[in-house]
Amino acid sequence: MSDNPMDQALALAARAVGHTEPNPRVGCVIVAADGRTVLGQGHTQPAGQAHAEIMALRDAAARGHDVRGATAWVTLEPCAHHGRTGPCCDALASAGIARVVASLTDPNPLVAGQGFARLRAAGVAVETGPGAAEARELNIGFFSRMVRGRPWVRMKIAASLDGQTALANGRSQWITGEAARADGHGWRARAGALLTGIGTVLDDDPRLDVRLAPVGKQPPLVVVDSRLHTPPDAALFGVPQRPVWIYAAEQQPEAQAALEARGAHVTHLPGPGGKVDLAALLRDLAGRGVNELHVESGFKLNGSLLREGLVDEFLVYLAPKLLGSGRGMVNIGPLEELAQGVALEFGPCERVGADLRMLARIPGRAVF
Amino acid sequence: MSDNPMDQALALAARAVGHTEPNPRVGCVIVAADGRTVLGQGHTQPAGQAHAEIMALRDAAARGHDVRGATAWVTLEPCAHHGRTGPCCDALASAGIARVVASLTDPNPLVAGQGFARLRAAGVAVETGPGAAEARELNIGFFSRMVRGRPWVRMKIAASLDGQTALANGRSQWITGEAARADGHGWRARAGALLTGIGTVLDDDPRLDVRLAPVGKQPPLVVVDSRLHTPPDAALFGVPQRPVWIYAAEQQPEAQAALEARGAHVTHLPGPGGKVDLAALLRDLAGRGVNELHVESGFKLNGSLLREGLVDEFLVYLAPKLLGSGRGMVNIGPLEELAQGVALEFGPCERVGADLRMLARIPGRAVF
Repeated sequence: MSDNPMDQALALAARAVGHTEPNPRVGCVIVAADGRTVLGQGHTQPAGQAHAEIMALRDAAARGHDVRGATAWVTLEPCAHHGRTGPCCDALASAGIARVVASLTDPNPLVAGQGFARLRAAGVAVETGPGAAEARELNIGFFSRMVRGRPWVRMKIAASLDGQTALANGRSQWITGEAARADGHGWRARAGALLTGIGTVLDDDPRLDVRLAPVGKQPPLVVVDSRLHTPPDAALFGVPQRPVWIYAAEQQPEAQAALEARGAHVTHLPGPGGKVDLAALLRDLAGRGVNELHVESGFKLNGSLLREGLVDEFLVYLAPKLLGSGRGMVNIGPLEELAQGVALEFGPCERVGADLRMLARIPGRAVF
Repeated sequence: MSDNPMDQALALAARAVGHTEPNPRVGCVIVAADGRTVLGQGHTQPAGQAHAEIMALRDAAARGHDVRGATAWVTLEPCAHHGRTGPCCDALASAGIARVVASLTDPNPLVAGQGFARLRAAGVAVETGPGAAEARELNIGFFSRMVRGRPWVRMKIAASLDGQTALANGRSQWITGEAARADGHGWRARAGALLTGIGTVLDDDPRLDVRLAPVGKQPPLVVVDSRLHTPPDAALFGVPQRPVWIYAAEQQPEAQAALEARGAHVTHLPGPGGKVDLAALLRDLAGRGVNELHVESGFKLNGSLLREGLVDEFLVYLAPKLLGSGRGMVNIGPLEELAQGVALEFGPCERVGADLRMLARIPGRAVF
């Protein structure tokens, strides 16, 4: 770990990814007045359990350290509310912490600044800023839900080098290799929910769960299925304990009853053209606490989400092969001018097994 | 530079890239008997001028160093022939070099081993092997021409992230950004010739020269033009001193005369279906001393070269944009099974400006 306490706190926060939904991923390091000795550290536990600050205080206590006069480095404003856990700001103040350095203010406009105010009222010095960019990036979904009222939408696409996601006859399993598939499951595991479309359900009958990577609990699966064509014996129902949320546009009482009998939760959000209102769907998912939404769908639903401006980021795996013709990544176009294309910004590109993984964002979309 | 003399010799050889065609890129470092002191160094000069060993001997002489008893580290077997320059093996031996360490044996089966034999006959110790993989990679085109009788064929493709190289209406300028275009010119500069097809000439009217990168002399341009449809006023004729080699399948005496009046060299290599025999074209280019052939063409000729097994490597620039539908990278398929796709192996992937550059090879194609 780095010597910088906030870098340590960020590294702790990163360990919480995939385990805290719908809560943010936060890390906390308590450093003695000498500025060097780490007295305690911790990160957010699963929802309903302790926050990072409480874990760090408990760690210090377990190690027999006195935290009076110490500084708590924490990657997000300590909470001031009595939720399922007590307010962290009170716990820090009553333990005798002299100073809190926080990366970010809470993005929830209803509570932003309240934690800091209560700390200051209790005589604790407060500074903000260090590690802000990294802390926000770790919680981009939480920030999106709080500020925009919808999840951060990451669309995963696996394709050949020449951009084909399936052959013309629909065959698509498996374009990428085992390492890329396992890596993709890691991205599924960090999401608050997975989303797919009825086309993929009918074409591939996928389970769409996390099997090839560690996971706390399986993320809920969202199916966009305007006419409730999901077969009640679909493989996706074979994942124990995993919620299935189906969004429909048409009333189909018999089909709905059959799906509900399999445990599905059916919501009607009719939009134009007999389709599901996708923007409303995202608002609904935010209401259910989904921070990051991981999309694995076919080129039609991909295109619809993209055309409606609902995609924030692409997670693309390119396989070292050429397929020539087939189904592309997204159903947009045909365009008349190159400038009409969807502009992106590349993030890192890395080898994953024999494949390449790249991230790309819609420019400016992370600014909110 | 590294302390290892062969690493230094390889770095020198790399500086010769783009300046030695049709000769190989070779570096030489002469190290004193103490094993540390560099007495002289050099790399291959443009064809007809000095080879690396002569440059290193001259460098040592210019610096007043006595090379008797020294070791020459050289990335390829010193030549034994009286071509446009004298035999390097004789020059090394008569200068009193005691030992030659060479990465590779000359790939030309007619002369392989002769340089080493003459060195040994003159009492010079010879070792081979260090740096062999890197030295061969630097000269993969030279090795291809010598061993396979055809150039190493590198196909450059610029596309959107979703694999579109042009819109359905043919628009393709510019998909990638300025940095990627300049980088692409650097790859043009190292090639022994550029190749395009009549489709690209008619669609884009490109110059296909090296403008955005340093270059010794412009590589010849090869145009695959079965029916001699290249317009005599095409922009490609506007590059001074640059040879234009047009390969045709049909006899078109009037068109040919008009093109020859513009300085073009027209060769007839008819193949099946009224098309140019592409395999024969590559053999012909090898006969003209082309080591690396840089292909910039459209998806039809790309597909023909690929289907005939004539492409060795892909140089792909992906722009951060999605275009949806249009023209793909290569005209192959439609396939029935994923396994029928063209398998590749990825090399390095790097950011170039806002774009990504990746190299990919046909597996096993570099083994010859």
